[in-house]
Amino acid sequence: MNTSSHDRYRESTPGRADVPDSPELLAYYAELERLQTGALWTVANKIEPWQPKSASVPVLWRYRDLREHVLHSVSLVTPEKAGRRVIYLDNPGRRDVSAAVGWLYAGLQVMHPGERASAHAHAASALRFIMEGSGAYTIVDGHQLTLNARDFVITPNGTWHEHGVSDDGTPCIWQDGLDIPLVNALEANFYAVHPQLHQAVTHPVNDSPAAWGGAGLQPQHHGWTKPYSPLFKYEWAATYDALQRQARVSDGSPYDGVLMNYVNPLTGGPVMSTVGASMQLLRPGERTQAHRHTGSFLYQVAKGRGHSVIEGRRFDWEERDIFCVPSWAFHEHANASDSEDACLFCFHDLPTINALGLYREQAYAENGGYQPVLG
Amino acid sequence: MNTSSHDRYRESTPGRADVPDSPELLAYYAELERLQTGALWTVANKIEPWQPKSASVPVLWRYRDLREHVLHSVSLVTPEKAGRRVIYLDNPGRRDVSAAVGWLYAGLQVMHPGERASAHAHAASALRFIMEGSGAYTIVDGHQLTLNARDFVITPNGTWHEHGVSDDGTPCIWQDGLDIPLVNALEANFYAVHPQLHQAVTHPVNDSPAAWGGAGLQPQHHGWTKPYSPLFKYEWAATYDALQRQARVSDGSPYDGVLMNYVNPLTGGPVMSTVGASMQLLRPGERTQAHRHTGSFLYQVAKGRGHSVIEGRRFDWEERDIFCVPSWAFHEHANASDSEDACLFCFHDLPTINALGLYREQAYAENGGYQPVLG
Amino acid sequence: MNTSSHDRYRESTPGRADVPDSPELLAYYAELERLQTGALWTVANKIEPWQPKSASVPVLWRYRDLREHVLHSVSLVTPEKAGRRVIYLDNPGRRDVSAAVGWLYAGLQVMHPGERASAHAHAASALRFIMEGSGAYTIVDGHQLTLNARDFVITPNGTWHEHGVSDDGTPCIWQDGLDIPLVNALEANFYAVHPQLHQAVTHPVNDSPAAWGGAGLQPQHHGWTKPYSPLFKYEWAATYDALQRQARVSDGSPYDGVLMNYVNPLTGGPVMSTVGASMQLLRPGERTQAHRHTGSFLYQVAKGRGHSVIEGRRFDWEERDIFCVPSWAFHEHANASDSEDACLFCFHDLPTINALGLYREQAYAENGGYQPVLG
Amino acid sequence: MNTSSHDRYRESTPGRADVPDSPELLAYYAELERLQTGALWTVANKIEPWQPKSASVPVLWRYRDLREHVLHSVSLVTPEKAGRRVIYLDNPGRRDVSAAVGWLYAGLQVMHPGERASAHAHAASALRFIMEGSGAYTIVDGHQLTLNARDFVITPNGTWHEHGVSDDGTPCIWQDGLDIPLVNALEANFYAVHPQLHQAVTHPVNDSPAAWGGAGLQPQHHGWTKPYSPLFKYEWAATYDALQRQARVSDGSPYDGVLMNYVNPLTGGPVMSTVGASMQLLRPGERTQAHRHTGSFLYQVAKGRGHSVIEGRRFDWEERDIFCVPSWAFHEHANASDSEDACLFCFHDLPTINALGLYREQAYAENGGYQPVLG
Repeated sequence: MNTSSHDRYRESTPGRADVPDSPELLAYYAELERLQTGALWTVANKIEPWQPKSASVPVLWRYRDLREHVLHSVSLVTPEKAGRRVIYLDNPGRRDVSAAVGWLYAGLQVMHPGERASAHAHAASALRFIMEGSGAYTIVDGHQLTLNARDFVITPNGTWHEHGVSDDGTPCIWQDGLDIPLVNALEANFYAVHPQLHQAVTHPVNDSPAAWGGAGLQPQHHGWTKPYSPLFKYEWAATYDALQRQARVSDGSPYDGVLMNYVNPLTGGPVMSTVGASMQLLRPGERTQAHRHTGSFLYQVAKGRGHSVIEGRRFDWEERDIFCVPSWAFHEHANASDSEDACLFCFHDLPTINALGLYREQAYAENGGYQPVLG
Repeated sequence: MNTSSHDRYRESTPGRADVPDSPELLAYYAELERLQTGALWTVANKIEPWQPKSASVPVLWRYRDLREHVLHSVSLVTPEKAGRRVIYLDNPGRRDVSAAVGWLYAGLQVMHPGERASAHAHAASALRFIMEGSGAYTIVDGHQLTLNARDFVITPNGTWHEHGVSDDGTPCIWQDGLDIPLVNALEANFYAVHPQLHQAVTHPVNDSPAAWGGAGLQPQHHGWTKPYSPLFKYEWAATYDALQRQARVSDGSPYDGVLMNYVNPLTGGPVMSTVGASMQLLRPGERTQAHRHTGSFLYQVAKGRGHSVIEGRRFDWEERDIFCVPSWAFHEHANASDSEDACLFCFHDLPTINALGLYREQAYAENGGYQPVLG
Repeated sequence: MNTSSHDRYRESTPGRADVPDSPELLAYYAELERLQTGALWTVANKIEPWQPKSASVPVLWRYRDLREHVLHSVSLVTPEKAGRRVIYLDNPGRRDVSAAVGWLYAGLQVMHPGERASAHAHAASALRFIMEGSGAYTIVDGHQLTLNARDFVITPNGTWHEHGVSDDGTPCIWQDGLDIPLVNALEANFYAVHPQLHQAVTHPVNDSPAAWGGAGLQPQHHGWTKPYSPLFKYEWAATYDALQRQARVSDGSPYDGVLMNYVNPLTGGPVMSTVGASMQLLRPGERTQAHRHTGSFLYQVAKGRGHSVIEGRRFDWEERDIFCVPSWAFHEHANASDSEDACLFCFHDLPTINALGLYREQAYAENGGYQPVLG
Repeated sequence: MNTSSHDRYRESTPGRADVPDSPELLAYYAELERLQTGALWTVANKIEPWQPKSASVPVLWRYRDLREHVLHSVSLVTPEKAGRRVIYLDNPGRRDVSAAVGWLYAGLQVMHPGERASAHAHAASALRFIMEGSGAYTIVDGHQLTLNARDFVITPNGTWHEHGVSDDGTPCIWQDGLDIPLVNALEANFYAVHPQLHQAVTHPVNDSPAAWGGAGLQPQHHGWTKPYSPLFKYEWAATYDALQRQARVSDGSPYDGVLMNYVNPLTGGPVMSTVGASMQLLRPGERTQAHRHTGSFLYQVAKGRGHSVIEGRRFDWEERDIFCVPSWAFHEHANASDSEDACLFCFHDLPTINALGLYREQAYAENGGYQPVLG
């Protein structure tokens, strides 16, 4: 810590720290440092910014660039040696914590027919969004779920979970999403490998969506007391159907089009305590207005093509591309087709942000709500 | 109140009132009565029973008996003069409050194509279960819902609501269920006729199930703050499908078979604050064991045929028959078919009983869980 | 049921039932009755009133009238034979259910030094407000509470409880308040006598207020999961102090003066699921305006003298007098003193009314908010 | 990233990543990096630790060391230039985020009679614990609170707040505690200076504790809807009294003695959404056993003297000393006096940890529950 570091943060606005260095103060600062302390006014303006400035950088990861590398990993490592065979998204601003955006981790996992990863559990919350292939399955605390493209699955905090592809399947790729960086940052991550390396399947296959997949219907005496959704799998067909129905009766949001949150059917709250997810539909030709809010967001294009403008930069996307919107970054979306709808899957940390009372939102007020696109 | 009335309730058990009348006490009682008071020990055993003894009588109302009378009412009164053209179920033990069971009212309403009842609102909570006909609709606070057989619809406390049958429909009959007797008893009922007699339809037809009918999916920014379900209509096809799926993965309850509660998708709680509803499936040949619990229940046979044993009496039922189970009455159900499932719709006051902390349940312990049927 | 009974309820307002009797209809009604049914339009206007009309009558019970009779009961019956030695308040409109107002029971219980009533439990919720004497105590599920004048105590649904007066005490009188009539009406009352007739005291005396009597402070790892307050006793001194403090910083309500609700410190909700209580302070000379609302209320004058106007009738009261305000009855209160404050203890069924979504309130709009007092 | 960095995290345990570097893999990694991606197995064991290893270091800050420096700051900077005149605690493991422990900031603020800092608001949640002096006050959203030694005060997320010392006061020192690092990390911090630099006092002084300071009592119609406690100040006298009462009826916890959490009286939950606080009492001679749990904790000695053992290191403390316990660090406390009790104030992020479902706890199983103290 030196003179210039103090001066860097000075502001002359009333109510902000504006203390010039002096020999006496520098001596004082040195004395404080010796006592494991510091003078607040030397860092106050730094640690109390006027508004958030995310460390994350807007990035678009093109599936056509990633796919071959993901598939190539099959020949490079086994699930046994790798733990899981995953290529993770490494935001240039978050490399220190291996995050795709904010405190969220994401990766593309590939498994071949007959492969099966070992079971483990962790305090981090995990979800998956299936990208391609058939025959994939996940086992969560003894509940086996079969997975198809664009299905959304959760493996919550503390559950034993493992993945595989059946012998008669095809190579499968899905996106993993976790809050590992968040739980690490909170110094609350625990990891355990299943004692038998694999779980027994103790319930009928797909019993969770069978029991909880009726809208507005709840099994009697379910006894569910966990803090996450008893519905582990949200199938694409039903999700897309719900979006289309909603699109017929609602204008949706000017910023998001028609957006449905995946929720815990037992509480109406988010699927897990820390991480949420949604699927949104942009109607043919729809172009949303820009807004910004707190929270970190990772989108995957579930259907169609279009572009998003994030902090003034345009990102063109097509199916299975992934892109992030950092906290407090202005963003808007456009469907490139005049005849087909486009769908964006998203996972985010809004449950965390909301639980802590930290959500704020702001519309982009100028230019009719559209950001100028930077050269 | 006289000597015999006091003596009627005496019990010699320790901890119970057991005070014989005497001239001195009778004089004392007279003095107390003059002061608008009484001696607790003269009524204590009466007002503190060892367990509930319902005033309601188990009754089965056969649809084949009622149908012609319901249809006949069309020629007798108009909706305009009748308010609503309804034949209500009048439990012999509850005639003073016009209840079908406990504090629940039920009736069969009939409307012809082109008829339309005027809009009103009340503090009582209402629901409907469609029994026959096509073209029926309900409008709830400007949301129009089209109704088909075995659909379940709510018109909650305080909402403007009205019913009709479209010009191209057929004569329609449905069951109304309300907590009018309860809300009257609590001296909290209010009634209002819509100033224009009819509401404007202010939303797209069936927008409520379109928006809220996706399992585990919730429209963004819905803004719903009412204490009842935003999902007003629960369609039969989806309900029956959910029961069948659940039946494939669950044994259900020994007392109820496979039972799904209709719930508020926003909270997972009951559809309305006072009244709940469920649909249950009895598999081919299924015969449940007897139990009893607090709360009053009115069943309608949605599908199939069978019988129930209620407090030792057997009631045989078929589609559209209605029967009641009073509070703390032992009851068990049996599907008469070995090849077809049977479904029972039920509405009840469990939300009230649960909110007030008054739920108790007891299995029938003897005879393998089956009541002897009284001659 | 005859012609006149139908005609009695006819109303010519659109949206209300207005069907004149005819020979054909009378024959139809007879036929319906045979099938345990009725025509709704014959009772609709009766069972759907425009607004509540309470069956309860406003009554003032003067303590100076009741006290000698309460004390006299000591020589007439023992606690053993009486169960409990209580004179109950018998509202002229609610004699069929032995209620003081609405579905609320109240009585004055007297015990002499050394007396001890046996322990019992019931599904009804009970509370006590101590009126005079020293040495009284209650034991609730093994927690003993010593009681002084104007202390408020709860013995919730399902708890074992018993009362007594220590050998060195004086004759004690307290008011019991229960929802027995409500729980009976809901056919959910259960009663049990303690197997040993008396409980062991399993915790330090007054441990409940010791643990839970700190404002804004909660014992760590308390493990409380019951649906009622873990704070069983609310002492007068602290209550009166809180009212005085609040009176210094708040104008209070125009209808109630400064009113504090007794609450469950663990949830901020009512002390029990069905029954609540409050203490309110009327400043010297304060006269509140009239309003009405749903719910039934029984007041006891804890301090001072004054009067209340209830549905246009004036009731003058002094310390320990008890009076009731029925549902939807206009009421207003006045402190008769220009120098002393007056305090009203009240218990009521608002937790029930609120849980069921049935609360409505209306100010008295005319005459500056004051009711004309009837001759 | 180079070969050795990958190898550093390899583990041979089944279920963990154990992939040796190879030329082919290194080329592959380089390719991935170009696409803003990485191979999970190169970082998996690092980002999924078996259990938390806190970056924070256990530290004890002695008040006798800090006090003179804090007082000296008065002559070095004005509140106007400094914003706030605070010496903050700078954990050697958390210097990058200016935290005292975990994501919690703490500092010692000093103000002289007549001084007044300007009003501001931020998304971070703040609290204060008064250490010495008289005449201090805080204004929170127009509510002025007068402060004495060992009072605990909150200034929640989003509130306008400002501090000062009255002209007739003495130099005052208090500890500030905030979650600034956490809210910064979540990229959700906002800061605003009050447009007039100072607030109007719009309520009677100390109206918050007057209204909300009654145990088990709640002002009627309070209208409070904020997600934090309406009780802003928790006074020492009442807190210490509550601890003493609890100590008479409870053994407390083997790990914490008698501990009371400061709570929101409206909900029973923590005082603010992200940060909580407690006061605990160690009885004369009491020595607690060791345990560890997630969450970060900063203690201040409110009364007495003793020592704590944290991760095997002993820290001796006396009044006003401050020390931290990092996440998942074993800790135990001992009162050094055989005649006087000792009290520890603590603030922590448990509300955050609990809201996110991340709390875990473990007792120290060996050596009778006591850690060996390291050389």
